[in-house]
Amino acid sequence: MAKLSTLEDLFLDEIQDLYDAEKQLTKALPKMAKAATSEELRQAFEDHLDQTRGHVERLEQVFEALGETAKGRKCEAMAGLVKEGDEIASNTEETAVRDAGLIAGAQKVEHYEIAGYGSARTHAQVLGHDRIASLLEETLGEEKDADALLTDLAQSTVNEQAASVLSTKR
Amino acid sequence: MAKLSTLEDLFLDEIQDLYDAEKQLTKALPKMAKAATSEELRQAFEDHLDQTRGHVERLEQVFEALGETAKGRKCEAMAGLVKEGDEIASNTEETAVRDAGLIAGAQKVEHYEIAGYGSARTHAQVLGHDRIASLLEETLGEEKDADALLTDLAQSTVNEQAASVLSTKR
Repeated sequence: MAKLSTLEDLFLDEIQDLYDAEKQLTKALPKMAKAATSEELRQAFEDHLDQTRGHVERLEQVFEALGETAKGRKCEAMAGLVKEGDEIASNTEETAVRDAGLIAGAQKVEHYEIAGYGSARTHAQVLGHDRIASLLEETLGEEKDADALLTDLAQSTVNEQAASVLSTKR
Repeated sequence: MAKLSTLEDLFLDEIQDLYDAEKQLTKALPKMAKAATSEELRQAFEDHLDQTRGHVERLEQVFEALGETAKGRKCEAMAGLVKEGDEIASNTEETAVRDAGLIAGAQKVEHYEIAGYGSARTHAQVLGHDRIASLLEETLGEEKDADALLTDLAQSTVNEQAASVLSTKR
């Protein structure tokens, strides 16, 4: 991480972190879709992959508006989240238990992004970057919607199915 | 991570993850309090440290209710979040820019926990662990309050002060 002297420096660092996080996510989501056992969850991950590609492009517009080259700064937290998601997939069988775990992992990812875009949007506002703040706000809304969709999926079907997976399947 | 065959297994894994995350946080918060430049933020981190110790104890009650030994399973995401927080502290000078960065980092931590406790609470409910679900719900509420307090702190003073830190301080 470079020395951060001003709020502008901190803001650029936040954008670089989000850019790396979104790029990691474009690689993780296809694996999560493949691991999902329910068709609905697979579809939700694939839809979110499309959205995530849009988030990457929006961040590229932010870099451009700042007159900076688009580049990431390794997001350690997202690396940890992706690793935990991989472990859920490899340590579960092809049952709804896996889906319940994948949803819980994906909601942590969404919350990471909600916090990250929330702070970055607010910093953009304070810095007077109104158009950039709007771009970040747009993504923030989509992350919140994605989180709510995952809650719905868990509550409508996955959790009940997961609870009915008997320990005799061990 | 052990093999997770049932929702009960997944739930225990989630509690072990949260237990490790909270324990990591009890070590990180004193450093964050020490790094904070505003008295209000330092106090907020110290108050949250007290709360976090209570969250550890509540998780120990959960382990007990499950008839399991209290032990953590390394939470990679929290490790990444703590590392990012350390970097903010060491790559900023003692100005409000550091505080703005510490708040953004702490809100990521809160959101990790909001997602984690949210899923665990819901899984406890589905499994019929009503008393455990109440314990988790209580912590979930405190994490949401902590997040809201950090937003207030950022908006009331820190961000404006951070914006006024001039690049000539470089």
